[in-house]
Amino acid sequence: MKVYETKTAPNARRLRIFLAEKNIDVDYIQLELQKGDNLTEEFRAKNPFAKIPVLELEDGTVISESVAICRYFEEIQPEPALFGTSALERANIEMWQRRAEFGLLMPTGMAFQHCSGYFKDRMTPNQTWGEDCVKSAYGYLKLINQHLSSNTYLAGESFSVADITMLSALDFGRVIDIRLNEKHPHVQRWYDLVSQRPSAKA
Amino acid sequence: MKVYETKTAPNARRLRIFLAEKNIDVDYIQLELQKGDNLTEEFRAKNPFAKIPVLELEDGTVISESVAICRYFEEIQPEPALFGTSALERANIEMWQRRAEFGLLMPTGMAFQHCSGYFKDRMTPNQTWGEDCVKSAYGYLKLINQHLSSNTYLAGESFSVADITMLSALDFGRVIDIRLNEKHPHVQRWYDLVSQRPSAKA
Repeated sequence: MKVYETKTAPNARRLRIFLAEKNIDVDYIQLELQKGDNLTEEFRAKNPFAKIPVLELEDGTVISESVAICRYFEEIQPEPALFGTSALERANIEMWQRRAEFGLLMPTGMAFQHCSGYFKDRMTPNQTWGEDCVKSAYGYLKLINQHLSSNTYLAGESFSVADITMLSALDFGRVIDIRLNEKHPHVQRWYDLVSQRPSAKA
Repeated sequence: MKVYETKTAPNARRLRIFLAEKNIDVDYIQLELQKGDNLTEEFRAKNPFAKIPVLELEDGTVISESVAICRYFEEIQPEPALFGTSALERANIEMWQRRAEFGLLMPTGMAFQHCSGYFKDRMTPNQTWGEDCVKSAYGYLKLINQHLSSNTYLAGESFSVADITMLSALDFGRVIDIRLNEKHPHVQRWYDLVSQRPSAKA
């Protein structure tokens, strides 16, 4: 199995952490996004939306979208369960995974796109929007700090895919100076805990 | 079971369509977003992120995020399967559901927020960003038109939660004049098909 990815991209990292937690090996193939490796006809044949990561199975089947790829591996190798096992756990983890995604990962990614100039050859950055995204990210961290004052992990007492999404987003946030500060002691406690897992090195 | 929602919101509608497909009855409680019904202390106790829809179970357990709520119902009542059954089907449906969400529903929602002035009492609209979102939505429709030229539904030959997301997004898009046109004959064919399902009236 091959995964086309970019080492520094947060969506790629969440898949790497997920696979490390499952102890699943794949071959990683690096694409340089700034050089447009994802915009070639060859890559668009794998993913018309030109996004990474992309999983390619032995028979040539491709799956895009990091969470969809994680879901595939959860299905073929259920242990350790990272999406939950009971109906309520699965719903709860999906809720927290989506909150981490919409509340932190997406604003962080958009702030990067609109404030860093990294992709200015292929988009018109909107600085004001990027700055609004930074504010949104801090709004999320404020709510999550409260939540993590009484929960070990995002979805309660078990580590899950929701934590992977938030860890990837938070580490990526440093690139545009979204960082934990003295207002986020409970997030910091959580961050130290999840960062110590061997998978966090992935 | 109660669902707190707003009849006109696309995330609320995708849950209603999903429940109609499953033939599951719940009590719907309407919140007026423009009046700030979602911003009260009482509602934030159910969902600190102040978003609808929210599912409340008989024992008071709450689940937010429309797709997490759909997941809960898929788990407790698997038939008809709307998230797929095999590992590959589930991954494929999740991929298309996320593409519909990020490619159409989110840009449409943001275009509405930034161009309509509907929430101008609680945010600073960024017209340029809203217009960029409209362009993104049309970019998605172009790619999807190609995909639907050889697929009955988004994820292949079975109707799924991905179609529900796209239908809700597309119908909502009319509010800000994102509409199918002569460039999208295959999306139109799909739209007519899914709109004829009884659930589309939900």
